[in-house]
Amino acid sequence: MPEPPVAIDPADWVCPLPLRETKRIVLGHGGGGVLSEELIENLFLPAFGGAAGVARDSALLDVAGGRIALTTDSYVVQPLFFPGGNIGDLAVNGTINDLACSGAQPIGLTAGFILEEGLELDVLGAVAETMGKAAASAGVGIVTGDTKVVAKGGADQIFVNTAGVGVVPPGVHIGPERARPGDHIIVSGNLGEHGVAIMSVREGIDFGTVVTTDSAPLHLLVAAMLTAGGAAVHTLRDPTRGGLVASVVEIARAASVGVELDLAAIPVPETVSSACSFLGLDPLQVANEGKMVAFVDPSHSEAVLDAMRARPEGADAALIGRVVAEHPGMAVGKTPFGTTQVIERQLGEQLPRIC
Amino acid sequence: MPEPPVAIDPADWVCPLPLRETKRIVLGHGGGGVLSEELIENLFLPAFGGAAGVARDSALLDVAGGRIALTTDSYVVQPLFFPGGNIGDLAVNGTINDLACSGAQPIGLTAGFILEEGLELDVLGAVAETMGKAAASAGVGIVTGDTKVVAKGGADQIFVNTAGVGVVPPGVHIGPERARPGDHIIVSGNLGEHGVAIMSVREGIDFGTVVTTDSAPLHLLVAAMLTAGGAAVHTLRDPTRGGLVASVVEIARAASVGVELDLAAIPVPETVSSACSFLGLDPLQVANEGKMVAFVDPSHSEAVLDAMRARPEGADAALIGRVVAEHPGMAVGKTPFGTTQVIERQLGEQLPRIC
Repeated sequence: MPEPPVAIDPADWVCPLPLRETKRIVLGHGGGGVLSEELIENLFLPAFGGAAGVARDSALLDVAGGRIALTTDSYVVQPLFFPGGNIGDLAVNGTINDLACSGAQPIGLTAGFILEEGLELDVLGAVAETMGKAAASAGVGIVTGDTKVVAKGGADQIFVNTAGVGVVPPGVHIGPERARPGDHIIVSGNLGEHGVAIMSVREGIDFGTVVTTDSAPLHLLVAAMLTAGGAAVHTLRDPTRGGLVASVVEIARAASVGVELDLAAIPVPETVSSACSFLGLDPLQVANEGKMVAFVDPSHSEAVLDAMRARPEGADAALIGRVVAEHPGMAVGKTPFGTTQVIERQLGEQLPRIC
Repeated sequence: MPEPPVAIDPADWVCPLPLRETKRIVLGHGGGGVLSEELIENLFLPAFGGAAGVARDSALLDVAGGRIALTTDSYVVQPLFFPGGNIGDLAVNGTINDLACSGAQPIGLTAGFILEEGLELDVLGAVAETMGKAAASAGVGIVTGDTKVVAKGGADQIFVNTAGVGVVPPGVHIGPERARPGDHIIVSGNLGEHGVAIMSVREGIDFGTVVTTDSAPLHLLVAAMLTAGGAAVHTLRDPTRGGLVASVVEIARAASVGVELDLAAIPVPETVSSACSFLGLDPLQVANEGKMVAFVDPSHSEAVLDAMRARPEGADAALIGRVVAEHPGMAVGKTPFGTTQVIERQLGEQLPRIC
């Protein structure tokens, strides 16, 4: 009869048998055999707070009838660790926020890893532990997963995929196509922090103050916004890759409406704007990982703003613009000088591997 | 007003603007800007049969109340194309089959791509098109997705993650822990074909006959098994990485029962056994991508076998063993000579990047 597995602190994850003296990922950790099982039972399950022993290919979740939301995101951020977070909580929060953009409350997450042979196990352990903590603090479980290993040079350390399922409360209908002329545009707080945090470590640049990522789960903020605004909350979007600009242009295109932003009203911290100026980046196109853009009927925008500001993740929420019937599919910005400029998305990539 | 996007045959996916003359993936295809949108609208949506225009971060699915199954798998198979399939249908079928192992019928799949800069667009187009066809033929939609691009050398061509949601019909309770002494063990057909198909192209070995992958969706086979066997179907497992051996040992451990296989009854084609003999592989540990192992109460095993054999994907189904109360957590094989041998999982990896 096989020995029962013994949970080991990932930081000391050394087994007594041949091949298992490694402190690094070997191809066999992705082979579906004993090493795979040991990695799951001794590293992932303790990190994710799951119960060891039951090996399943899929997780079962109880739902009431209605609509569920389903989303997926892969994370390839470099470096893996940065001020305020790492690839693990970024993946958990990012998927929760994609669900929140549909007005859904998350009920289960998946974790898929692609690992490069030779990766240090304590790096993987630290990432997994952060994922588990982020999921627990958001009140959602990482309920199933998968690990593949490719030979050294076939991938870059760790890629993480998280998919998520959420439940959309009855009566909630949120989507990019629902934005309509007159809607107020609200952003939940300061923009540009995630991108600058990544660039500061990647480029080794000291901007005087350490800018930390804004990575945070926003499902409770969204729940508060829906309580305050109900059906007046038309559209939600988390401004990740492509930043605020990509979000509002995509919504303008989806709803065939125009967007008008008051550039002076958009909250960009001084540290972010000076770093962006140094790096030649547009802070409105830099990725955020803990912010929400909302399009809300003007009848309820004050109430939604108040509800947002009552929560820490929405404390700096601001009204930054409005939807207009003119120039459908296009966004413009009003400058402090009273002039108007067209806001266009970048063609490609300002910051590769930002998430 | 921006030009509306025009769908272009992926094989001729060339745009007239600067940077877009490329027939290859550039970093900007993962940047969340215009190039990302063009890739989605001109390549993924046509391939997946989706409606262009609505940009959402998550998909909405209607469910009746009850249990849903959630699963994820990443695919890193090399080569990308092999006899009988490619990484695309492998990913779709594999995720459908993980859902089917819970007795669930699939209702939605996600597609997450990690692409290496420089990948030819027609390779990606062919993979996406195969995914779309596999999903359509299984009657399930690819409802949301994500694409990241890493610099050349940061990944190996294409990695695909598919997550899936399925609905478990009322009264269906299937799991590895439900196997019990007396259960008959059934396999749905010939073993070892996927692994040998991959190895034959990877190693450039000609085994006389071309062995093609068995990659196939099994949710309709499972539905037929449940109609015939009802609650007598205790456990289902698709014997992928680690093959039949990993499946039965994991189930034996999860249920604390013993497994006894009749080695002579296990269907292994002559082409597979001779190729495995040449390559030094155990056909019972080679990955399958279109097979199901079932643990069924003996009262219903004949009915389940008959139902399986009535479908093409179960035509070669066979009774290969039974569950015993002895040696819990362990599997043994009875040889044609009347002797008994212990069947152990491999420690690591027989065939890296097999799926």
